[in-house]
Order: sequence, then structure tokens, then C-alpha cells
Amino acid sequence: MNNTYILLASCKDRVGITNLITGTISKYDSNILRLDHFTEYENENSEEGQLYLRFEFEKVDSLKGALEKELEQQNIYFELFDSSVNTKIALFVSKEDHAFNEVLLRVERGEIPAEIVCAVSNHEDNRHFAESLGVPFYHVPSNEPKENVEEKMISICEEHGVDLIVLAKYMQILSDDFVNHYKNKIINIHHSFLPSFIGANPYKQAWERGVKFVGATSHYVTSDLDEGPIIEQNVIRVNHRYDVKSLKKIGRHVEASVLAQAVEFHVLHKVIVNNGNKTIVFD
Amino acid sequence: MNNTYILLASCKDRVGITNLITGTISKYDSNILRLDHFTEYENENSEEGQLYLRFEFEKVDSLKGALEKELEQQNIYFELFDSSVNTKIALFVSKEDHAFNEVLLRVERGEIPAEIVCAVSNHEDNRHFAESLGVPFYHVPSNEPKENVEEKMISICEEHGVDLIVLAKYMQILSDDFVNHYKNKIINIHHSFLPSFIGANPYKQAWERGVKFVGATSHYVTSDLDEGPIIEQNVIRVNHRYDVKSLKKIGRHVEASVLAQAVEFHVLHKVIVNNGNKTIVFD
Amino acid sequence: MNNTYILLASCKDRVGITNLITGTISKYDSNILRLDHFTEYENENSEEGQLYLRFEFEKVDSLKGALEKELEQQNIYFELFDSSVNTKIALFVSKEDHAFNEVLLRVERGEIPAEIVCAVSNHEDNRHFAESLGVPFYHVPSNEPKENVEEKMISICEEHGVDLIVLAKYMQILSDDFVNHYKNKIINIHHSFLPSFIGANPYKQAWERGVKFVGATSHYVTSDLDEGPIIEQNVIRVNHRYDVKSLKKIGRHVEASVLAQAVEFHVLHKVIVNNGNKTIVFD
Amino acid sequence: MNNTYILLASCKDRVGITNLITGTISKYDSNILRLDHFTEYENENSEEGQLYLRFEFEKVDSLKGALEKELEQQNIYFELFDSSVNTKIALFVSKEDHAFNEVLLRVERGEIPAEIVCAVSNHEDNRHFAESLGVPFYHVPSNEPKENVEEKMISICEEHGVDLIVLAKYMQILSDDFVNHYKNKIINIHHSFLPSFIGANPYKQAWERGVKFVGATSHYVTSDLDEGPIIEQNVIRVNHRYDVKSLKKIGRHVEASVLAQAVEFHVLHKVIVNNGNKTIVFD
Repeated sequence: MNNTYILLASCKDRVGITNLITGTISKYDSNILRLDHFTEYENENSEEGQLYLRFEFEKVDSLKGALEKELEQQNIYFELFDSSVNTKIALFVSKEDHAFNEVLLRVERGEIPAEIVCAVSNHEDNRHFAESLGVPFYHVPSNEPKENVEEKMISICEEHGVDLIVLAKYMQILSDDFVNHYKNKIINIHHSFLPSFIGANPYKQAWERGVKFVGATSHYVTSDLDEGPIIEQNVIRVNHRYDVKSLKKIGRHVEASVLAQAVEFHVLHKVIVNNGNKTIVFD
Repeated sequence: MNNTYILLASCKDRVGITNLITGTISKYDSNILRLDHFTEYENENSEEGQLYLRFEFEKVDSLKGALEKELEQQNIYFELFDSSVNTKIALFVSKEDHAFNEVLLRVERGEIPAEIVCAVSNHEDNRHFAESLGVPFYHVPSNEPKENVEEKMISICEEHGVDLIVLAKYMQILSDDFVNHYKNKIINIHHSFLPSFIGANPYKQAWERGVKFVGATSHYVTSDLDEGPIIEQNVIRVNHRYDVKSLKKIGRHVEASVLAQAVEFHVLHKVIVNNGNKTIVFD
Repeated sequence: MNNTYILLASCKDRVGITNLITGTISKYDSNILRLDHFTEYENENSEEGQLYLRFEFEKVDSLKGALEKELEQQNIYFELFDSSVNTKIALFVSKEDHAFNEVLLRVERGEIPAEIVCAVSNHEDNRHFAESLGVPFYHVPSNEPKENVEEKMISICEEHGVDLIVLAKYMQILSDDFVNHYKNKIINIHHSFLPSFIGANPYKQAWERGVKFVGATSHYVTSDLDEGPIIEQNVIRVNHRYDVKSLKKIGRHVEASVLAQAVEFHVLHKVIVNNGNKTIVFD
Repeated sequence: MNNTYILLASCKDRVGITNLITGTISKYDSNILRLDHFTEYENENSEEGQLYLRFEFEKVDSLKGALEKELEQQNIYFELFDSSVNTKIALFVSKEDHAFNEVLLRVERGEIPAEIVCAVSNHEDNRHFAESLGVPFYHVPSNEPKENVEEKMISICEEHGVDLIVLAKYMQILSDDFVNHYKNKIINIHHSFLPSFIGANPYKQAWERGVKFVGATSHYVTSDLDEGPIIEQNVIRVNHRYDVKSLKKIGRHVEASVLAQAVEFHVLHKVIVNNGNKTIVFD
């Protein structure tokens, strides 16, 4: 089963799309291991839907080319992945280690089938974690013009053939240029259960409001800060006994696991970003 | 979208099955609204998988017959449903109202697209709930030989054309004959998070053990009591402050929502029972 | 254990308060069954805390008077309840039945130790549910000046000696006058996980944003609409397959259970509202 | 607030116990920061209860001695802790790193106020994690007679003044002698949601049964293997798409966070083990 292709595709829904694809796959004697065909309607009275597809099927010679040709002819948006090729991840981090270590360790453990090819940080705090696992660590201080900083980071990423940038509590705002350079290839973890408590000191806001849950949201980064398509969210219950410091601790735990889950979904090619601002996650 | 067919199918996995079905659907110019193709392997080294399919597609004249013929020829196990035909449910209940009312009210509210055609009970306690919603209520006391009791119940179910029996806290054990008469057509709610605390007074056992969660399990009824294929489970967190009575209260809440969810999955034709003792739920 | 007093108290924290109270209780030979003493600090460096207390102790002659005198002398805010006296609830509702029935049935079942003394609605839809359980149902249409409407409602509540108004999806805005007349005595269920998606059609907003959870918030009503002290919140996980209608269904389920839980906390005298805008819930 | 004492106490419930303690604390002009008084009854008709107390109060000269004397005179079981003294933990581990790293990192991050004084393992796999954080790592192979192995481990623990042994996936069975030597001072994480699926390969059992949740249980170790008092449990939802390998992955995640939470409760002195086989956790 490790020797498979994964196809993500999307188009305005119409009769026959899936049959076209299964036909080609079948013609090349490839077996489909999993197929999700989901048509999104806002509600049951909607006239027109958007089709989202995910196929996982056996790798067979020449099938790839044939499929690509066909999908292009049909004007269907698609991405085709070889499941044996690991996504190359750059982990960006500042001082806090929790999200960074969670992703690092899950990859190390083989739970997330990816490769952490480098760690980039504006601080030195997490160097030893990266290096103890053999991951090259680059200290790129943020006290230079953002343009220079980002140029350095892009050059590091390019050197390592990075496919995905994971902001594991990287506390610098990225420029629109940088973000657009890696469209839907940057995953962030937001320190709150969006859209709640946007802004400064969300845990203090949450404490003052007496909320009963702390949450976190992982999303693709767009130029609209913290508002990109949501990949994963989760919450942990709290109560009045949690002070601001304890809420932050819970926040770290939920941030770490939500980010790692989002990265897993991405590298398993389970996520399609729609035209608007949301994702389809074939979990 | 209400005018659709739903196909559930399963067979030993082989190349081309899904393409065969999409081909037929496409030939009749029917649009697929949702398709789940899942191949079950125990792990990544398993050689042979079992294929489970669920299709939802537009109703088109003659398509049904053509599809049925094809699936029969291919020796594929399948069920084909018309989504506009509501499942007719008989609700069986004893004294407790919680699971009974939850299913009744969700159906009444249109949340579960089904019809409660009758309520059957060995007690009178829930008559007013049934009748206030216009559901015929049959009191079938259990102080007669089980054979007679079940004969009466079967006759009531047949009179109402019952498709599904929901045991909403019906506290009598059904005979193997009765169960086999309605294979995979009886849904039960088990007063525990299986396989924990099987037997008498599970909440007392749970309290003595100091568990941190109370759960419930909804499953199809087989002749092996409380051991049929699981459709849905859930849990609610508790703590040391819950005495046995409070645990029972929480148990009722989780039972009610788990049973109602299981019934919803069933009537939406989202559940396939495999050859063993488990379900695939395309939720 | 049913014959107990419950004391809720709060004051600026200082040495000896709890000892003063336990001393008096002990002097009258009353046994304490449960005691929660919680001092709220924003964080570990805060200098001054606010003390919140909840005592449950055996009812003993003359103890009540003695305790009240003492707490008044010490200038401590307090409320003292007799646990054998059930809270008298008026259920306000509009057309939707889910929250209304959940509270009604939990009370009927003895899960919430309270008495529903009347139901008030601007519609007739829920009359049969109320009346089938023997609860007087008052239809107070909202097409009159709000002043008149609220005058009628107050008069109904006074006639029935109402202690608590539960807005179980009552879709009219109450005037500040009405709200102030029942300070911390009106519980609402908010159709969203506050502070998310405030405003019109929150489920459509949630769907467009692709959130992974639907939530609900129960709170005391203050003149600041939907912003009163939170008593209880909960969430249910959803995914991209939920359309707006399905999100609303999930929303109803979480609303119903969150509201019922909040009402239970209130009638068990487990909630203290602090000076700001939050609650201490000794769950 | 860091300069506090924490008192855990328990006895047959009777009038005046709490007042006795608050009286002493108050006499020494110490402020109580938090107090939980919980009387356990099986149900509301139980005649006799067991009292559990937890106090957190300011450290004041001579108060400790006075309190100890009094509690001894009253024959009350108690433990008195200085919150500024960190619990010294020995982490035992075999090959898997997940639970080990989670506890290690939470302590390192200051989330769990404790000190990891040593790591002990029958394998070398986790040496680099321990050593990169400056924790002495002892390789004690298990291919010797258990008596010798345990003797070495006890000697390591004694050398480091260990207060608590955390079995972070240490896959050797400890002798009764060892367990009794550290009564209620060994915390284990069980690879299942007890009492479900005890025995070999629980994840395969769970997969075959089609369960909808994977759980984990952290408990004190007693001579009755895997049956000691439960400190914490949690679950993560799964579905039919999880094969055995994926269930194991989820199992690791829930094991890691449940164990770390249990350790946090213990070192914050929030856990009392009752006479039977359960805990009171003042979370």
C-alpha cells in the first residue's frame, strides 16, 4: 500500500467526472485503495455544487502521465502525489518549544510521514532540540529589515527543497510577498479558538470572560493574518480554577496537538483548499 | 438533492469495481453527489482487503434496474435505497423515557429523516409521550411466555411495515428467533462503554473503580447479547463528586444522544456491517 | 443529605473568613457535606484575591439565623438556600422545542431538582409539550408594545412565585427594565460559541469559515445582550460534510444540553457571579 | 502564592474536622488560598461518609508543627507538603519515547513543577533525549534476574532522593516487593481505556471490535497489575479508517497527555487515594 498515488482534484460538479478518472485508473489495472467524492452545497436547495475528489490508488507505469493529460484536457484543478515521496518540511520557530517539539517528535517517530529538512528560528532556544535529532538549525535573527530576513529564509528553504513551511510558534509576521511565494504551503497555529479573542493577550481576555474551553486553530497562511483556511481545531475544557498562566499552559498543549494533526493531514494529502477561504479535509 | 438513490455495497477488493458502478451511473446521466470508497486492511502489510462502497446519486429512470442487474452479475453484496422513502421505525421502550424521547423528538423535528410508525412497551409509562406526538402506542406486557410476547410484537411491526426496531431502553431480552428475524434491523443502546463493566449495576462498578468517563454504545443486536456490531459510542467526563445516582444521570444523557446518532446514521444508510462483527460508518 | 443548607458567599480575601463560618456551623453541631473555598487571582503574582465560598451543611435549628447575622456583621456578600426547597422555574420559549423539551424532561425525570411552574411563549407551538406534562402554558403574543408584553410576563411569573426564568430559545429581546428586575435570575442559551460569530446567521458564517466545531454558550442575561456571565459552554465536532442545515441541527443538540446543564448548576446553587462579568461554577 | 503548604487529609466524616483545621491555620494568621472539603457517599441514602480534605495555605512559622500535632491527636490520616519543594521524579522508560518526552518536556517547560532527577531504562533508545536536557540516564538491562535489576533501580532512586517513579512506557513488570516499597509513589500509563481490552495487543482487539474511541488510563501501581487507583483517563475519537497502526499512533498521543496530566495532579498534591481502589482528584 505504500506504493500509491494520491490525487486531489476539484471542479464545478458535473456528471461523469469521477467515472472518467476511475476509468483511466482501471484501464491501467491500478487498484483504488480509497476514494472520497464530496460535492459541496451550502444547503439542500443549492443548485450548483463544487466537486472535491481524493483518490488513492496503486502506482502503475504510464498511468500518471495518462491521468494528468486527461485532467488537463477536462480543465480540472488537480494535484497528483506519489505517496512514497515524503514532504520536505521547514519548521519555523521562535522561543517556545511545544509546537516545534510535537511536530519534530511525531515525524521522528514515523507518525507523520514527512522529513524535517531544516529548522529556522529568530532565536537560539530550540537549537539543541533540532540538533539532537540531526535537523540542521538556522538562526536568522529578526533584527534586520524583514526583506533581508525573508530573503535568507527563502534561500535556506530553496537549498533544502522545502515543500511545506510549518510555523510552530514563529512569532514574526511574514510579508505578503513571502506568503504568496508559498501559497497554501505555510501552516500556522493560532493561539486561540478563532474567531474568538483575536488580538493581544487572548488568554487574559478568555480568563476575564470566564470561558469554559481553550482552543487552537491551525490554518494555511494567507496575506490576511490569522484568517487563512482552517485545517484543524480543537479545544480543552477549563474551569474557574485556571488562572491566566494555566490557561496558557492548556493553550500550548492544544496548540501542539492541533498543529501536528494539521501537518499530518497536509502531508497525507488529505486537504483541499476551496476557492473561498476554507478547506475540505478528507480525514 | 432529495431525489437520490443511495447504494451500499461490499465485496473482496479488486480492480475496477468502482469504475463499473460509476460507469453505469454516468451512462444514465445521473450525477453522483457523494461517494465513499474504503478498502479495509488490518495494516499496511495486509495483502487482501475488503471493499466498502457508499454512493449517493440522482434518481434517473431505469438506472436502478440496470445497476441491480450489474451488481448481481458481479456477485457484489449491495443494498439500494431511495432517499425519499423514509425508514419506518418501531420504538421499543420500557419505563425510562430518555432514549425514547430523544429519538422521538429528533424525528419529530425533522433531524432524523424517518417515520416512527409505532411505539411498543411492556409498560405504560411512555404512552403519553408517544400519543402526544400522534404515535400509536402498544402495551405488550412481558409477563407472558416470551414466545407469545414476541409474536404480538412481530405482528404489530408487520402491520406497520416496520423497517427498523430501535430498542430505546427496552429492558427485555429478545429471543434468537426474534433477533434473526430482524438481522441488522434492531439497534440497541448499551448502558456502558463496551466492553467495560458488562453485567449488573455497571454504574456502581464504575463508581467503585473511580472512572473518569461515563459512556454508552449503540450497536446492532445479534444473538450474542450486547456484543453486536458497534454503530456509535460516546463518553462524558465525570469526576469523584459524581455519586452512583449522578453517574446514572450522565449515563442517560450519553445513552440518549448516542442512540439517536446511531439511528440517524442507519436511516441515512451510512452504515455497512462487515462479515465480522463491526461496522463501517460513512459519517 | 437532602436536608441541607447551601451557602454561597464572596468577599475580598482575608484571613479567617472560612474559619468563622465553619466555627458557627460546628457550634450548632451541623456537619459540612461539601465545602469549596476558592480564591481568585489573575496570576501567581497578584497581591489581592477575591474569595468565593460554597458550603453545603446539615440543617439544624437556629443555625440559619446565627449564620446570617454573622455574615452581615462581617459585610460578606452571601446567599443561603434550603436544599429541600425547589427553585421555581418559568420556561420562556418561541417556536423551537429542543432546549425547552430538554429542560422540561430533565426536570420531569428528577435529574434537575426544580419545579417548572409555567411556560411562557409568543407562539403556540410548544403548548402540547408543556401541557402533556401538566405545566401551565401561557401564550403571550409579541405583537404588542414590549412594555405590555413584559408586564404580562412579570405578572405571570409573580403569580407563580418564579425564582428563575430560563430562556429556552425565546427569540424576543427583553428590555433592560425586565432584565434588571430579574438580575442574575435569567438564563439564556446563545446560538453560538461566544464570542464567535456574533450576529445574524451564525451557522452560515461558521460554514463559510469551515470551522471544525459547533458550540453553544449559556449565560446570565444582562442588559448587554448575549454578553452576560457565562455559566456553561460546550462544543460538538463537525466536518466539511455538514451543510448549514446540519450545522444548525448540531447547534440545537449542543444548545439543549448546555442550557440544561447551566440550569442544573444554578438550581443546585453552584454558581456565583463575580463583580465583573464571569461566574465561579463549583461543579 | 508560591510559599504555601498543602495539606491532604482523610478520615471518617464527623462534625468539626474542617473547623479544627481552619481554626489552627487562622490562629497562626495564615491565609487559606484554596480548600476542598468533599465527603464521599455512594448515594444520597448512605449513612456514613468518608471525608477528603485538601488545603492550600500560606507558610507561617510554627504552624506546620502545630497542625501536625493536632491531626495526629485526632487520628486523621494526612500528608503535609511544602509547595516550594519540588517532587523528585525518576522516569522509567523502555524503547518508546512518547510518554517519556511528554513528561520530560512539560517539566522542562515549567508546566509541571517537579524535577526529573534521573531516567532509568532497559534500553538505550531514549538516552539522547534525557541527556540533551541534562537528565542523568541509567541503562539497567532487564536480562538479569529481576531481583538484581530492581535492586539496582532502587539504589539509583535512593541516590537521587526520588519521591515518585513514573513508568513512561516501561515495559517490564515490577515485583510486588518493588511496588510495595513505593506505595502510591509509582504512576503508570496503561495502553488502554480500562477495563477495556486487557491483555495482549489491545489495539488489534479494538480494531476488530470497531470501537469509536481509543483511550488511556494513568493509575498508581499496585501489586494487582494494571488495576491500581485511576488518576486520569482520556479518549480520542477514531473511525473505521484507522487501521491497527493508526490506532496505536492515537494511543500514543492519548497515553502521553494522560500520563503527563496524572503526574501534574500528583506533584501538585491534588490526589488522595482512598481505602478502596480509587482516587479523589481535586483538579
